[in-house]
Amino acid sequence: MNVLAFGEVMMRLAVPNYKMLEQTESLEMSFSGTGLNILSSLAHNGVKTHLLTVLPANTVGRTARSFVRKLGVSDERILIEGQHIGSYFLEMGYGNRPSEVTYMDRSQSAFCQVKLSDEAIKTALKDIELLHICGISLSTSKQSRENALNLARIAQELKIMICFDFNYRMSLVKADEHDILIDSYKKMLHYSNVVFGSEKDLLLLLKIEHSDEEQVEVLYRKFMREYHVSFFGGTTKVNEGNRKILQGFLASQSDIVYSQKREIISFDRIGTGDAFAAGILMGLIEDWTLQETVEFASVNAQLSYTTYGDSPIISRELIQAKLMDENIDIIR
Amino acid sequence: MNVLAFGEVMMRLAVPNYKMLEQTESLEMSFSGTGLNILSSLAHNGVKTHLLTVLPANTVGRTARSFVRKLGVSDERILIEGQHIGSYFLEMGYGNRPSEVTYMDRSQSAFCQVKLSDEAIKTALKDIELLHICGISLSTSKQSRENALNLARIAQELKIMICFDFNYRMSLVKADEHDILIDSYKKMLHYSNVVFGSEKDLLLLLKIEHSDEEQVEVLYRKFMREYHVSFFGGTTKVNEGNRKILQGFLASQSDIVYSQKREIISFDRIGTGDAFAAGILMGLIEDWTLQETVEFASVNAQLSYTTYGDSPIISRELIQAKLMDENIDIIR
Amino acid sequence: MNVLAFGEVMMRLAVPNYKMLEQTESLEMSFSGTGLNILSSLAHNGVKTHLLTVLPANTVGRTARSFVRKLGVSDERILIEGQHIGSYFLEMGYGNRPSEVTYMDRSQSAFCQVKLSDEAIKTALKDIELLHICGISLSTSKQSRENALNLARIAQELKIMICFDFNYRMSLVKADEHDILIDSYKKMLHYSNVVFGSEKDLLLLLKIEHSDEEQVEVLYRKFMREYHVSFFGGTTKVNEGNRKILQGFLASQSDIVYSQKREIISFDRIGTGDAFAAGILMGLIEDWTLQETVEFASVNAQLSYTTYGDSPIISRELIQAKLMDENIDIIR
Amino acid sequence: MNVLAFGEVMMRLAVPNYKMLEQTESLEMSFSGTGLNILSSLAHNGVKTHLLTVLPANTVGRTARSFVRKLGVSDERILIEGQHIGSYFLEMGYGNRPSEVTYMDRSQSAFCQVKLSDEAIKTALKDIELLHICGISLSTSKQSRENALNLARIAQELKIMICFDFNYRMSLVKADEHDILIDSYKKMLHYSNVVFGSEKDLLLLLKIEHSDEEQVEVLYRKFMREYHVSFFGGTTKVNEGNRKILQGFLASQSDIVYSQKREIISFDRIGTGDAFAAGILMGLIEDWTLQETVEFASVNAQLSYTTYGDSPIISRELIQAKLMDENIDIIR
Amino acid sequence: MNVLAFGEVMMRLAVPNYKMLEQTESLEMSFSGTGLNILSSLAHNGVKTHLLTVLPANTVGRTARSFVRKLGVSDERILIEGQHIGSYFLEMGYGNRPSEVTYMDRSQSAFCQVKLSDEAIKTALKDIELLHICGISLSTSKQSRENALNLARIAQELKIMICFDFNYRMSLVKADEHDILIDSYKKMLHYSNVVFGSEKDLLLLLKIEHSDEEQVEVLYRKFMREYHVSFFGGTTKVNEGNRKILQGFLASQSDIVYSQKREIISFDRIGTGDAFAAGILMGLIEDWTLQETVEFASVNAQLSYTTYGDSPIISRELIQAKLMDENIDIIR
Amino acid sequence: MNVLAFGEVMMRLAVPNYKMLEQTESLEMSFSGTGLNILSSLAHNGVKTHLLTVLPANTVGRTARSFVRKLGVSDERILIEGQHIGSYFLEMGYGNRPSEVTYMDRSQSAFCQVKLSDEAIKTALKDIELLHICGISLSTSKQSRENALNLARIAQELKIMICFDFNYRMSLVKADEHDILIDSYKKMLHYSNVVFGSEKDLLLLLKIEHSDEEQVEVLYRKFMREYHVSFFGGTTKVNEGNRKILQGFLASQSDIVYSQKREIISFDRIGTGDAFAAGILMGLIEDWTLQETVEFASVNAQLSYTTYGDSPIISRELIQAKLMDENIDIIR
Repeated sequence: MNVLAFGEVMMRLAVPNYKMLEQTESLEMSFSGTGLNILSSLAHNGVKTHLLTVLPANTVGRTARSFVRKLGVSDERILIEGQHIGSYFLEMGYGNRPSEVTYMDRSQSAFCQVKLSDEAIKTALKDIELLHICGISLSTSKQSRENALNLARIAQELKIMICFDFNYRMSLVKADEHDILIDSYKKMLHYSNVVFGSEKDLLLLLKIEHSDEEQVEVLYRKFMREYHVSFFGGTTKVNEGNRKILQGFLASQSDIVYSQKREIISFDRIGTGDAFAAGILMGLIEDWTLQETVEFASVNAQLSYTTYGDSPIISRELIQAKLMDENIDIIR
Repeated sequence: MNVLAFGEVMMRLAVPNYKMLEQTESLEMSFSGTGLNILSSLAHNGVKTHLLTVLPANTVGRTARSFVRKLGVSDERILIEGQHIGSYFLEMGYGNRPSEVTYMDRSQSAFCQVKLSDEAIKTALKDIELLHICGISLSTSKQSRENALNLARIAQELKIMICFDFNYRMSLVKADEHDILIDSYKKMLHYSNVVFGSEKDLLLLLKIEHSDEEQVEVLYRKFMREYHVSFFGGTTKVNEGNRKILQGFLASQSDIVYSQKREIISFDRIGTGDAFAAGILMGLIEDWTLQETVEFASVNAQLSYTTYGDSPIISRELIQAKLMDENIDIIR
Repeated sequence: MNVLAFGEVMMRLAVPNYKMLEQTESLEMSFSGTGLNILSSLAHNGVKTHLLTVLPANTVGRTARSFVRKLGVSDERILIEGQHIGSYFLEMGYGNRPSEVTYMDRSQSAFCQVKLSDEAIKTALKDIELLHICGISLSTSKQSRENALNLARIAQELKIMICFDFNYRMSLVKADEHDILIDSYKKMLHYSNVVFGSEKDLLLLLKIEHSDEEQVEVLYRKFMREYHVSFFGGTTKVNEGNRKILQGFLASQSDIVYSQKREIISFDRIGTGDAFAAGILMGLIEDWTLQETVEFASVNAQLSYTTYGDSPIISRELIQAKLMDENIDIIR
Repeated sequence: MNVLAFGEVMMRLAVPNYKMLEQTESLEMSFSGTGLNILSSLAHNGVKTHLLTVLPANTVGRTARSFVRKLGVSDERILIEGQHIGSYFLEMGYGNRPSEVTYMDRSQSAFCQVKLSDEAIKTALKDIELLHICGISLSTSKQSRENALNLARIAQELKIMICFDFNYRMSLVKADEHDILIDSYKKMLHYSNVVFGSEKDLLLLLKIEHSDEEQVEVLYRKFMREYHVSFFGGTTKVNEGNRKILQGFLASQSDIVYSQKREIISFDRIGTGDAFAAGILMGLIEDWTLQETVEFASVNAQLSYTTYGDSPIISRELIQAKLMDENIDIIR
Repeated sequence: MNVLAFGEVMMRLAVPNYKMLEQTESLEMSFSGTGLNILSSLAHNGVKTHLLTVLPANTVGRTARSFVRKLGVSDERILIEGQHIGSYFLEMGYGNRPSEVTYMDRSQSAFCQVKLSDEAIKTALKDIELLHICGISLSTSKQSRENALNLARIAQELKIMICFDFNYRMSLVKADEHDILIDSYKKMLHYSNVVFGSEKDLLLLLKIEHSDEEQVEVLYRKFMREYHVSFFGGTTKVNEGNRKILQGFLASQSDIVYSQKREIISFDRIGTGDAFAAGILMGLIEDWTLQETVEFASVNAQLSYTTYGDSPIISRELIQAKLMDENIDIIR
Repeated sequence: MNVLAFGEVMMRLAVPNYKMLEQTESLEMSFSGTGLNILSSLAHNGVKTHLLTVLPANTVGRTARSFVRKLGVSDERILIEGQHIGSYFLEMGYGNRPSEVTYMDRSQSAFCQVKLSDEAIKTALKDIELLHICGISLSTSKQSRENALNLARIAQELKIMICFDFNYRMSLVKADEHDILIDSYKKMLHYSNVVFGSEKDLLLLLKIEHSDEEQVEVLYRKFMREYHVSFFGGTTKVNEGNRKILQGFLASQSDIVYSQKREIISFDRIGTGDAFAAGILMGLIEDWTLQETVEFASVNAQLSYTTYGDSPIISRELIQAKLMDENIDIIR
């Protein structure tokens, strides 16, 4: 199966050795984005993947492309135009110190500035069976919002399965654009078959009615019915004593399952939601049971906390070894 | 408010990646000292700070100065003389392996050898409202002891508030100098308004009488009364199960408060007492309540365990985010 | 003497070990700009220096400030506003392979967006005797151009000596802004006492008339007379066989001198013109002869080719050792 | 006492910073092997040690030798022949992610190909009082098996105490060689005085009869009686809640003792069994009580989890400090 | 045009910072091989490229594939089988110190052990118009020799243009295999249309008759006629004073041209012949004149001496900038 | 032959990547000293070597010892006492920028403080046939001077061949100790059989009479006769155009020979004189002709300019390859 993801690729500049930015003279460069992260995880599990994004026509864009290819994702459908890429600085937390992310301007990035024509979109969708769209593209610029919605519209016409991730970031939204944004989210959800999100997204963004007495499953179901969504999944995190615990859920039209609770030990905290989403897509692509799917996805998320970089690179062999023996220490 | 700190600056040569010294070919250089550490923390919270020390008149001294400035501390009152700086090697511990510190000779350092004239001291104290003196300078050499006591005497004459930190290190004291040292501690305490120390300092060094039945608060009060000290603060560390817990206290003439107990997760273990002291000074400078002050100071100490380097660089924004949400994981 | 420089500070992201960007996962971060570079060199020779620029109000801006201070330049007159800083990627050349520079968007940078009020300018100019303005600020944005010209106007009113550096970069100028730009250069030159530039600047930008038969000195003199410039300096580079040779010149109202020809061996090729300019300013500040000045400046430039980073950090001791013994190999 | 160990030395190529191999461009090279690891630990506790192995006659072999010497182990008895060394890649785990080891071909290594003549063996055993042989050499090649058995035979004739470590790795054994292997293990055990292994080795490899109701001590005793073994030791690891716990045991002809249970915090997980074995040998060499011996050995193992590299380098000073104060945080 | 190259991929382990192997604890990993190097250069100039090789079915093989993709070369035709990869250690020379290369065993590598079936070969050759075969595969093992000759035979049947590179390494050939090897070289040359080699290859390996009085061009022509070769190219290196000079030649059936002489400044000395060959192929693919082709190829070779890694990554933009201005210093 | 060298070992802290000290946060640690450097070179050519020095009884001393062993030099005769080691900072030059060395205090080093008893000296000299003493030990402290002279006296009594290196450093000598120093040099020379030095040493330090008309060889002969020296050697460096040229000389009682002139290309400039001396000792040990000896020594010196670290590690294979082909580029 050919999978295409649409989303911005940003340069990630991480401070090494748990230092703060002002303590370092060297930065670790990689590239990141929800779409890329999900494709990376799928590619590391044997799926054929393609990225649709816009990268600048210079050394930086070339470098981003080589990074995409290195992850096992095809760069052949990437558009090359413009001169700027968005970037963010990451100061990795340690123990009970949080990670800190600082964004540089992304409004001028190639992704946010370039219009995708209908022809370009159709070319990009050739032979694609599953399309992933990241909700952030609805907030980053007027152009990226239009591109995302056009893409979804055409994909639906082509009967391509569409997967959408809320990924709602309050801080990215300008006050006067809030209504436009909610509107575009709703449009997007009507195109979507598979959705990733949380209780909060349904309540605060979509304002779905839900009383405190009702179980959260009722809320999920209302949402799925209203927007004709086939699968809805996500994760919740809680603290038990001084341990952080992650649990995934996955709802189909008829059923809802939960993964085991798994302890989180954090090395590199970003991109772990994308690992969960990719795990769910693996189950859908390979037609596993809901329970198998959510367990696989939650181990993928758990391990992605312990690996370097935003883009998950865990293979199914390691996930299965971990599913078989929770305490496995060395694999030879 | 202008704050001046007096103390030795040493070169810290840390072994990277948790290796032992014999396993490395590369060292991470920084500079450290109680005075510098406290000023660094104050500067990162917006206070105007100046360091009074002596640095050698060569490349190494120039490099130390640039490090001081980088931390946001003014180097304009530093004396430049001599050719030697003290240094120490740090093998950072991991988990239940302790950190190990090895000192090279500091007796010949510019700080230990150069006399501060009364004129030099008066120049250094211009416009200063708060002076911090580190107890280590009473032990490192006869000259540094004389300099410290002269400085305190003149500062008192100028009605500058004096803050003193016991920082008593048994290993630095030669057997035949013990009485001289205790004497100089007592002199120094009579000049001091704010003091950092521990129960042990009061019992073993000052030999204040205290029966085991009495609460430790009674001891603190005896000490503060005898030496006319306005504020006395410090931290205690205990193990609860396999967790390390830190708690701070702060006593005024009329009251004594304790911070919440906070778990310590260690990355870089040195300089955390200085982070606590700096937090207390922030409260005194900005006139917070005792309780606000001790909470702020204890979070500053807690976070300084998780950051690289001896000199705390945590800003008040991060401390406040942590005070509001203990479990905060990512700040965007 | 207090010197102030006005100019943009950019983040420089250099690829280590002579690799190309696509070959690296790590970048070396520093900060750079003509103003900062010149001040760095002056500060390393004992001059009191202040930078006037705008830096973003976030971790990146704080880091840039700490870098400025580390170089010995005061950050107290820097404005803190906005969220973005310009950046460039540097792939360092080796031998006969050229260095390559790729700029990311700087139009949204704090420096290019923020207006300097007359009050802000006057505060920044307090006690300043020499002001340096970099010509690039005339091209980067409408706002930065207005800021630069306002600053020069007010400085002239305050009778502050103004030093201006052409630094004309064709690639930065949009086609339809060329006339505006030339106009602003001319205005700026009328405010200026000391100017750095080249024959090409005078011919192509200012279109000063000059026949091929006339010596270049005649051209310099025409320019200096027309714009009432007291000193005009610059460098020329030529290839002799496979050696690269640098020569500096310095013209006063009455005289013109040339430095010895010196071989260039390149390690880090950027910022070397700024090293020359700073060397000239040293001579003007300390009232050396023209010949002493131009020799000092040309050795400063020569050595800056062999040192890391854009900002020159060579001290006068090293320059003098080099002036005394061209072949000096080790200094102990 | 002079100690000799016989075993293969492999090149360890570890991925830094907890990355996976595909994420790195740099590897950390060291050399490793059970024999070398045990000697390293003994040498760091003051014992005179010699390695018997075969290293290739090229730059790589020279480098391996310099690494051996650096650890404090004599390289004078190493044979230099051939062109190849075995190697393995290590992706270090983090938290609940396991470490992964990938071996490259070792069948062509100098160690696996070169025959040790009786003369060479006798030369190597000169003045040796204790000989350690690693069980892996029984599996790596026909030649290495023959060499190991010859060595043991001659050492026994010379009345040298022989210490043998099961170190049985299922994955190294080809199906059709299983019987030969068990046979060679049994031969080797008959030569041996001190043995390191586990319950599993006795049951699965030696097939010693043992009912589930019997205590494990009974099994140990049967084994020791049958093979005339003087000392048998090893470790067990269990999970208590989310803590990993290590406990050592040591059996003599008359007695069996257990160490305290100690928590394991993992930094570098390989070579920790060798640290335990070396600790036991220290006690035998210096004639400590069984209990002292097993405590020392288990702290050596515990600390070796927290230090870099396969070869333990903990000194007795640190072990004793840890034995005296479990919670020691900084040693100055 | 789709280009396929066949050849072994080895792991290159380079010592950083011009150290010798025994001085380092860290190695820089990359992957290399004539086929890969040529494809890398073509890919960086916009050609669609595919590698045919065998890589092991483990983490190391996966990492090699990701490296191939990163260079812009398709890994889809690579066979995944076996467990071993060949490797070599590189100690980079500096100035007048030569680089030193030490090979580890490659006889057990997947490339040397795995048989390519005719079906596999036909699949690999699908849509290919140009095939490159490296002469080293004739020496590394019997299997690799058979594979190479089979591949050439089938490609010729499919009328695919075949390019062959002598790459004869005396040291790789066992004494008793010399005749077989010469024989296989001759067979291969009969299949080939484009050949890279040197005067020495023709004289010593093929024993083409040639008197010392005859010009070398006569020799080239004899060779090309005898083996029906359309193009023959290569480079010569000479020392002029203390400068190293490179010159390329290219012969067609009717003509022979020479490039300008260009100075070599060495940073990373390996893979430069492959850069020349790739440059020639660019001219053949895009139908340039012989002279344009040989100049482009010789600049590609010259610049590849100054870039990191065996695989050339210079783009045509940089080569053209260099062709236009030999002394270009910075490209902005 | 067993060779012993006596001299101080200092910690060398080098700034990486040609940066200045103030630009770095990381330092490269190694250990250095004339005695160690010469032994390193001999050991890399197969000679059995032993170092006599004093190292501190702490982690730093242990690390220095492991470094000594790693170089192939025996550490068994090193005395372990005291707590301090001397150190120096190295800022490596680039091209025409000189290297800069900054010493920290060495007066308190174990080497300068500890007395060697006659017994200790005799133990150290057991089985030694050649003893090397570095002239620096005559200047570093009263104690080190006494130790050096005692050592020479006893070695002479034991009929051990003594080799002495002037290594006179004006900057190390206090004004009032100049006469004592010259006196001790003269005493030492009377004990010595082989001496390394320069024309300047003979004229300025020993004040041997020599008119400008006389050839330098006459001076050498006077010196050798007066002090009964068997061999006297050294190097001269000159600039030819922009090339640096090195030439070695070696005088016996009857003859004087000069090496070819060889170009110097500098990577790491320190320790190159020691490489020359070691080369000469190789010839004396293995009884080569004077001419062979001086050529070998001068290539050793030439190559040591191009290798990392003070201690030469070039093997005879590389020197011989270089002697056979001056332009050798890659050794496979």
